[in-house]
Amino acid sequence: MPPEKAIAVAVVGASGYSAGELLRLLSAHPGVAIRAISSRSYEGKPLGEAHPHLRALDSLVFQHPDGLDWGSFDLVFFATPSGVAMRNAPKVLKAGARVIDVSSDFRMQDVAEWERWYKIKHAAPQLLAKAVYGIPEFYSERIAETKLLANPGCYPTAILLALLPLLKAKCVDPGSLRAVGISGLSGAGKKMESPYMLTEAHASVNAYAISGHRHLPEMMEQLRAFAPDAALEFVPHLAPMSRGIYATIFADTVSGASARDAHAVLDKYYSDALFVDVLPMGTYPRSGDVCGSNVCRLGLSASPGKGRLTIFSAIDNLIKGASGLAVENMNIMFGLPADTGLTALGMRP
Amino acid sequence: MPPEKAIAVAVVGASGYSAGELLRLLSAHPGVAIRAISSRSYEGKPLGEAHPHLRALDSLVFQHPDGLDWGSFDLVFFATPSGVAMRNAPKVLKAGARVIDVSSDFRMQDVAEWERWYKIKHAAPQLLAKAVYGIPEFYSERIAETKLLANPGCYPTAILLALLPLLKAKCVDPGSLRAVGISGLSGAGKKMESPYMLTEAHASVNAYAISGHRHLPEMMEQLRAFAPDAALEFVPHLAPMSRGIYATIFADTVSGASARDAHAVLDKYYSDALFVDVLPMGTYPRSGDVCGSNVCRLGLSASPGKGRLTIFSAIDNLIKGASGLAVENMNIMFGLPADTGLTALGMRP
Amino acid sequence: MPPEKAIAVAVVGASGYSAGELLRLLSAHPGVAIRAISSRSYEGKPLGEAHPHLRALDSLVFQHPDGLDWGSFDLVFFATPSGVAMRNAPKVLKAGARVIDVSSDFRMQDVAEWERWYKIKHAAPQLLAKAVYGIPEFYSERIAETKLLANPGCYPTAILLALLPLLKAKCVDPGSLRAVGISGLSGAGKKMESPYMLTEAHASVNAYAISGHRHLPEMMEQLRAFAPDAALEFVPHLAPMSRGIYATIFADTVSGASARDAHAVLDKYYSDALFVDVLPMGTYPRSGDVCGSNVCRLGLSASPGKGRLTIFSAIDNLIKGASGLAVENMNIMFGLPADTGLTALGMRP
Amino acid sequence: MPPEKAIAVAVVGASGYSAGELLRLLSAHPGVAIRAISSRSYEGKPLGEAHPHLRALDSLVFQHPDGLDWGSFDLVFFATPSGVAMRNAPKVLKAGARVIDVSSDFRMQDVAEWERWYKIKHAAPQLLAKAVYGIPEFYSERIAETKLLANPGCYPTAILLALLPLLKAKCVDPGSLRAVGISGLSGAGKKMESPYMLTEAHASVNAYAISGHRHLPEMMEQLRAFAPDAALEFVPHLAPMSRGIYATIFADTVSGASARDAHAVLDKYYSDALFVDVLPMGTYPRSGDVCGSNVCRLGLSASPGKGRLTIFSAIDNLIKGASGLAVENMNIMFGLPADTGLTALGMRP
Repeated sequence: MPPEKAIAVAVVGASGYSAGELLRLLSAHPGVAIRAISSRSYEGKPLGEAHPHLRALDSLVFQHPDGLDWGSFDLVFFATPSGVAMRNAPKVLKAGARVIDVSSDFRMQDVAEWERWYKIKHAAPQLLAKAVYGIPEFYSERIAETKLLANPGCYPTAILLALLPLLKAKCVDPGSLRAVGISGLSGAGKKMESPYMLTEAHASVNAYAISGHRHLPEMMEQLRAFAPDAALEFVPHLAPMSRGIYATIFADTVSGASARDAHAVLDKYYSDALFVDVLPMGTYPRSGDVCGSNVCRLGLSASPGKGRLTIFSAIDNLIKGASGLAVENMNIMFGLPADTGLTALGMRP
Repeated sequence: MPPEKAIAVAVVGASGYSAGELLRLLSAHPGVAIRAISSRSYEGKPLGEAHPHLRALDSLVFQHPDGLDWGSFDLVFFATPSGVAMRNAPKVLKAGARVIDVSSDFRMQDVAEWERWYKIKHAAPQLLAKAVYGIPEFYSERIAETKLLANPGCYPTAILLALLPLLKAKCVDPGSLRAVGISGLSGAGKKMESPYMLTEAHASVNAYAISGHRHLPEMMEQLRAFAPDAALEFVPHLAPMSRGIYATIFADTVSGASARDAHAVLDKYYSDALFVDVLPMGTYPRSGDVCGSNVCRLGLSASPGKGRLTIFSAIDNLIKGASGLAVENMNIMFGLPADTGLTALGMRP
Repeated sequence: MPPEKAIAVAVVGASGYSAGELLRLLSAHPGVAIRAISSRSYEGKPLGEAHPHLRALDSLVFQHPDGLDWGSFDLVFFATPSGVAMRNAPKVLKAGARVIDVSSDFRMQDVAEWERWYKIKHAAPQLLAKAVYGIPEFYSERIAETKLLANPGCYPTAILLALLPLLKAKCVDPGSLRAVGISGLSGAGKKMESPYMLTEAHASVNAYAISGHRHLPEMMEQLRAFAPDAALEFVPHLAPMSRGIYATIFADTVSGASARDAHAVLDKYYSDALFVDVLPMGTYPRSGDVCGSNVCRLGLSASPGKGRLTIFSAIDNLIKGASGLAVENMNIMFGLPADTGLTALGMRP
Repeated sequence: MPPEKAIAVAVVGASGYSAGELLRLLSAHPGVAIRAISSRSYEGKPLGEAHPHLRALDSLVFQHPDGLDWGSFDLVFFATPSGVAMRNAPKVLKAGARVIDVSSDFRMQDVAEWERWYKIKHAAPQLLAKAVYGIPEFYSERIAETKLLANPGCYPTAILLALLPLLKAKCVDPGSLRAVGISGLSGAGKKMESPYMLTEAHASVNAYAISGHRHLPEMMEQLRAFAPDAALEFVPHLAPMSRGIYATIFADTVSGASARDAHAVLDKYYSDALFVDVLPMGTYPRSGDVCGSNVCRLGLSASPGKGRLTIFSAIDNLIKGASGLAVENMNIMFGLPADTGLTALGMRP
């Protein structure tokens, strides 16, 4: 792509882990020009101060977000804490740029439910109806047309990719859903809090957010779009690693459907998918095998003798679970092949 | 205890991780004299060759097991692979020594089911009726009288301690049980196989034994002793750490019972327990916090709006899940206070 | 020991990692009664709030340090940041209690040099002459008599135990000393700073404190006590683990001395040592093998063809490198056997 | 590059970690066609059996090496254990293909010394004179012309890139060199041996190969090419991580040269280097920051008051220390821009 046609992007909130990964991907993308990065705390410093591994991109210097000229970008990514994107998106859209919100501000249509979970008043409820939830495997046409893309959460990506085809095919009982998530610590961002210290986390596993994780209502809204009576129990866990999400999902099949049938549903639904890899029956994903890639790996087994299924889903939480997915959505929004800049395979060991 | 009254013990299969932990605990136990350790592959070598951290005990030298004089011991521990204890236990018992089998040979009463899962013919089915399953919190009287103790598996210890009081109190629906286990790699023993290499395991999570884990039938037998119609789905996972088991257990309450009721059941049942720590409502265990100790920590929460419970259980798989429990059972069998030599607190960070 | 004879201790600054380890050891010590713990930030909370693994000791409640009655203790441990112990020690000593300073305030006799490295004015320079540097392998008689014990730093303990006997025996050239240290992250304490997050530290190694580490002048003072012209270069590194210090130390032998001679010097010097384990020629320590114990393991090799030695030293930084050593010093100060409460072997894997 | 012009490559010994990384890089390289992969143990199986993360390349099927038609390739990579490449290279070269040996068979010119360290007779000593040691920063012209490229070892790459410019500029005393290396475990390859199990390695650091590491004579030969009287002491260590090498190198400056002078030498020497990143004075590398990239980062400090330098070098051992470097050498040998397919930045966290 000739430089003058490159998509001019800005990344707001560029000092965090999702932003670092986004900038790593965008800098290698053949159709993108990174025009600005912002961060209040790093204002005036080169990118490498926040992301030492990206020192080669030190010509990028953090600006204060208030100094950004929204109209000079084709696309603005928000990799900010909850509450920032919703205050800025109206201005960005008005200035003619598109928005991909990697945060959570536009992920739900039910504003009351959103406010209940996020404990802040939504600043732009009028935009929710225009926001498209960015799961390309289900909403690619709407994604192609939107100006405001809500990039899904990491757990929702892993779990919805496993469940939505099965619900769509009426293959599983929507009232029977339970999911256990196990996440590396990068999912918490760069929070300097005790549970995320190596000393505290390196040799321990625990459930967290037991009274309710914010990704649950986001998932519920998506599940109910396919099965109005869907019910999901969700328990997230932390494991001592940096990257990766692994979800183990329990579901009852509806009468007649076998695990093999369910596997065939997934296999068929994702037969042309660029980034969902349905493993053959009898083989199962490991989170480490997809780290570094934009791929979601799915496996499925019968729970013997019970009409019950277990589905296993693995993603890199910072790529398919955040920034890789954001680039994938960008590609679709701007008419590029969806895998542009996203063909890296997993990196092991 | 004067030395002449010390329990004379032998440890068969002393080169593995459970044995190493057992020897560490026994060497600090005031009422035990370690008289022999055996290992075919380390015959003639001092203990520190297999367990460098135990080099201070190098006066212990591995013998070939065939050279052991069973009659010279009060107690023989088997920390061997499946199939060894059952071939030797009859001789040991006949010679007048007692047996604690840290392996799986005597854990189940249903010999046909055992043989189906372990894929070998049981060599001593006549002893199964005499074997006592070693959960002191439930079977201390029988433990005190037995000559043949079957030390439970690590997952069963974590999961049964959570579920048995609730089943006993008819507080949860026995047909509704599901458990996810997350284990460190020491649970696999010293197997030099690819999945246990640091390079393969250090940054990945995955489910394993998906077609069925041998601890499932062991748990089923125990659950059915309290609730004949118990059904349990169990999915074990590996996480990148060495020690620790964390179990997240789902159960439906029976009509009327709340999570608070269920918590009260656990709290009361374990009010005098030496090694089960029921956390207050609203607080939850971390596996790392019990590492180094013989304690099982339990937490319990309601799953909002559903009459459903989640119970969280954490143990050190090599201590309460293996060798610490074996010492606890020994104490009871020999009339010592159950916590003799087992009072170490968890070691963090 | 009958309770009335127990040493009444207080631990000031009890919320950090060294204090947690100290309290774990003291709670199992047969001759100690923990009478008070203090922390400004945890005032009024039980011990388990800061140290969840020590919840069993929740009858201990953090007090504000200003409320401590120094005269009611036999011994006060300071596990505080630099600068706290020196302001309080005069009062404690005046009230008749003894002091073990686990921090750095009394480790050096050269107050100007101390102030240069710690960048604060020393508040009690008059006490320095009374302070005894607590390496029992060299100063046990003075330790037995002091009221004010300066507990050495973790790197100094690992490195001095390797070098002092060789300097004393005039076996190595004091001008030729170089040491590389590799430490787990618990050495940094509970600092919630970016380099100590699991995400930042889990898969990386780096040198740090390259412009100079505060343990260097402390080591220099000790080395010079044995060899006035000693010179040491010291580069500390962080490795992705929680516990453990490993030091690789280079030295030139003086004319005539071979590596075997040097090994014999160490072997002889530590022949009766309780806590220094000189490995046979040709075998070398691993930091993990001493974790959980109060032992320092030393190995030594010739650097082929050069009259050069390499010495390898491994300790658990929180035990022999901090709190275990503090307990050992306490035992000596109070006339107990030096290994009372310190006989735990390393815990692996 | 049109497919018909793609470099037709084979990878022999394709089941190991270096080969996995090589195939990951080659599959994304715009000028390469992977025509064959071989492995005795995986014959007939798709690539993903050995490298699950590369399952997307499962159209590649392992062949037995004896079935390879050397003449059908432009280039054959050997990622084999020592001793394989030297037996096959003559045939490959005779058949008209070029060779990049990622193993150690052609790294040294001194065949007697090589045989002494590798303990096997060299099968193709006649080829050694034709082999070019592949450090592009020093030998790019010779690399461009060779048919037989000896790809350097991981430690040599990290250490030579730090030292060669300084020796060349006569800035450091060649007799004063000491290096400590710290490596992740992938450097040991897929060896299923006890020290590489997660349980053994996850929480420990130790020196290894203390009696002499095979990379030492390889480094000596290179150092002596620039300074005939070079002497180097080298002690490698293992740290609990998968990837990354960190080297801390000590050297004395020659009279007059300051650390700043030495830094200027490095800075100037690498001013146009694609893959060596000399950090500004006062900043230092972390191994994790270059993981995933083909970059070597160098930092340098004065050791205060002594005319001594410390140089810090960090690489990803599987990329700049093995397979990335092999691709870089390939690019030069085939006239492509040296960074083709190698522009990925480090991946953190």
